[in-house]
Amino acid sequence: MKTLTVDLGERSYPIHIGPELLGAGELIAAALPTPRAVIVTNETVGPLYAQRLAEGLEAAGIKVVARTDLPDGEQHKSLATLETVYDRLLESRADRQTAVIALGGGVVGDLAGFAAATYQRGVPFVQVPTTLLAQVDAAVGGKTAVNHPRGKNMIGAFYQPRVVVADMDTLATLPDRELRAGFAEVVKYGLIRDPAFFAYLEEQAPAILGRDPGALTEAVYRSCRNKAEVVAADEREAGQRALLNLGHTFAHAIETGTGYTDWLHGEAVAAGMVMAAETSRRLGFLSENAVTRTRALLERSGLPVAGPAGLSTDRYLEIMGVDKKAAGGRVRYVLLEDIGRAFVTAEVPEATVREAIEACR
Amino acid sequence: MKTLTVDLGERSYPIHIGPELLGAGELIAAALPTPRAVIVTNETVGPLYAQRLAEGLEAAGIKVVARTDLPDGEQHKSLATLETVYDRLLESRADRQTAVIALGGGVVGDLAGFAAATYQRGVPFVQVPTTLLAQVDAAVGGKTAVNHPRGKNMIGAFYQPRVVVADMDTLATLPDRELRAGFAEVVKYGLIRDPAFFAYLEEQAPAILGRDPGALTEAVYRSCRNKAEVVAADEREAGQRALLNLGHTFAHAIETGTGYTDWLHGEAVAAGMVMAAETSRRLGFLSENAVTRTRALLERSGLPVAGPAGLSTDRYLEIMGVDKKAAGGRVRYVLLEDIGRAFVTAEVPEATVREAIEACR
Repeated sequence: MKTLTVDLGERSYPIHIGPELLGAGELIAAALPTPRAVIVTNETVGPLYAQRLAEGLEAAGIKVVARTDLPDGEQHKSLATLETVYDRLLESRADRQTAVIALGGGVVGDLAGFAAATYQRGVPFVQVPTTLLAQVDAAVGGKTAVNHPRGKNMIGAFYQPRVVVADMDTLATLPDRELRAGFAEVVKYGLIRDPAFFAYLEEQAPAILGRDPGALTEAVYRSCRNKAEVVAADEREAGQRALLNLGHTFAHAIETGTGYTDWLHGEAVAAGMVMAAETSRRLGFLSENAVTRTRALLERSGLPVAGPAGLSTDRYLEIMGVDKKAAGGRVRYVLLEDIGRAFVTAEVPEATVREAIEACR
Repeated sequence: MKTLTVDLGERSYPIHIGPELLGAGELIAAALPTPRAVIVTNETVGPLYAQRLAEGLEAAGIKVVARTDLPDGEQHKSLATLETVYDRLLESRADRQTAVIALGGGVVGDLAGFAAATYQRGVPFVQVPTTLLAQVDAAVGGKTAVNHPRGKNMIGAFYQPRVVVADMDTLATLPDRELRAGFAEVVKYGLIRDPAFFAYLEEQAPAILGRDPGALTEAVYRSCRNKAEVVAADEREAGQRALLNLGHTFAHAIETGTGYTDWLHGEAVAAGMVMAAETSRRLGFLSENAVTRTRALLERSGLPVAGPAGLSTDRYLEIMGVDKKAAGGRVRYVLLEDIGRAFVTAEVPEATVREAIEACR
């Protein structure tokens, strides 16, 4: 097991990463004010892992007063599903000290986290991410949210967990496609701030995607360390945290434009990062070689480097115009000036963005 | 105009109190990052005051991109109404910098504040309270929430405004009954931590309830100063902020037990404070004379000092058992040891609570 700390003063918390952690209830018990918890999971993950988690918690003295298995899928990351979680918390008489434990991927973590942030104005929250995407991104850093028909993550809060437990064993049942989608966010850390990690991934991608436990633990650990450093420096995305959105403005257009169904988030991010790289190269910030390396790593990993065929460039721009990252009406882009060095700018001509999108067809 | 500051580090903010402030848009403009705002008000207050507020904002360079008049009443402080606010914000393309300005009483402020706290994970928020209750309590301190059928303020967040503007002129149209209900919270500050203010109120209650502008400004100012000091010391209610809940555990039982319809919040707080005083006296903490002074001031001000006739003592206790202020399953009470000195304890025999409730019939 490897452990790192997200340094946020009195709200600092540990992230434990490794195999065989699901039953290690003492890791969670150590972070809770009272020995009571509710597990929020989904219909896919719950039957596989909730019992092992609950047994570990009970063995560590934590009473699990309720468990709720939400329907699986991004389309259920809604205010309607959120209300069912509130109802369950109230039914089980959860009080201000009762912890909410999210067991699942990003949808479960984001929604349960927002429920924890807002139930009685905030109760203790624990993340037990079971997908690679959630382990390296969603579960770390305190962004919680639900979707609105008009846009992803439109309703949410910044709310930090008390502890994150990432058990590599839960990745055993993750479909290959989802493992690859999570890998897109791993690559992102290399691209925005860690060139040595990017080089490591160019070498180790086959081992990671082949689920080698050592390679997985290392990839998750180095991803979380990067994210933790960014979050510690800029919890509320006033500055460098925005760099974590590399590719995401394009990705949100892909996801919204295709109705949140055909594309996994990580797949959209992969294509979006190529669009960001193409934009960067056209503006003279990024070398052709760096774009090629980026495309090559993603492609070799089975990730898309082109957007959806049916989505017109006009539609991309229309959606990006209302993207919540827009400040004062202007769209801000995360661009690259090298592998391992990103920056934010609003000085991007529309024509260049159009060309970059067209270059990814 | 009197101004005080709620001292919360980089989230500190001013409270401006006085007559003729509604049109002083520059007080709000000075606190906003970009000159765009949405006004959230209700069908009663909107027609009376929203135009003057909007004109003052426009004159100060703030563009009001939308206004929404919610239905009036505590029963509309719901998730359903909240969704209509989210819809309106999205329709008007409000971005992360667009401010939400709450114009109204506690219901509008709590609900609009929760919308501001959670729309795109938090946008700038401004309170323009138009009832005495909201001016001395709800608008100050950053508690936001909506109700759930199972309990008041069950869903919410701690989220501070950028500025509070309390215009005494808006109290001109406030019904007498609501003015008195707000006065209950004014009395509360005297009871929990300011004996000189309590004595001032014993003398000035007729002038305040007679809407003398000077007396009103002074009462609101001294109330806000007390609340600001408490909030600065304990923003998230880990300690002394709980003292602000004097009478509120009983009051919530009254409100929940009567379906949130017959009793105004301040009226329930008045009766609840008498119950807390009666509990304190029975346990030997408070003198008979102090109880008498408390009852006398509230009664002279036209406030109830007895609970609803139809609510059984068993039902009080049942509701109080699930009250969200319960920690670890035990109910914590705010009690008095003198006028101007309160404390929190969970060491209260059920029989004593029963007697205190019975003493207020």
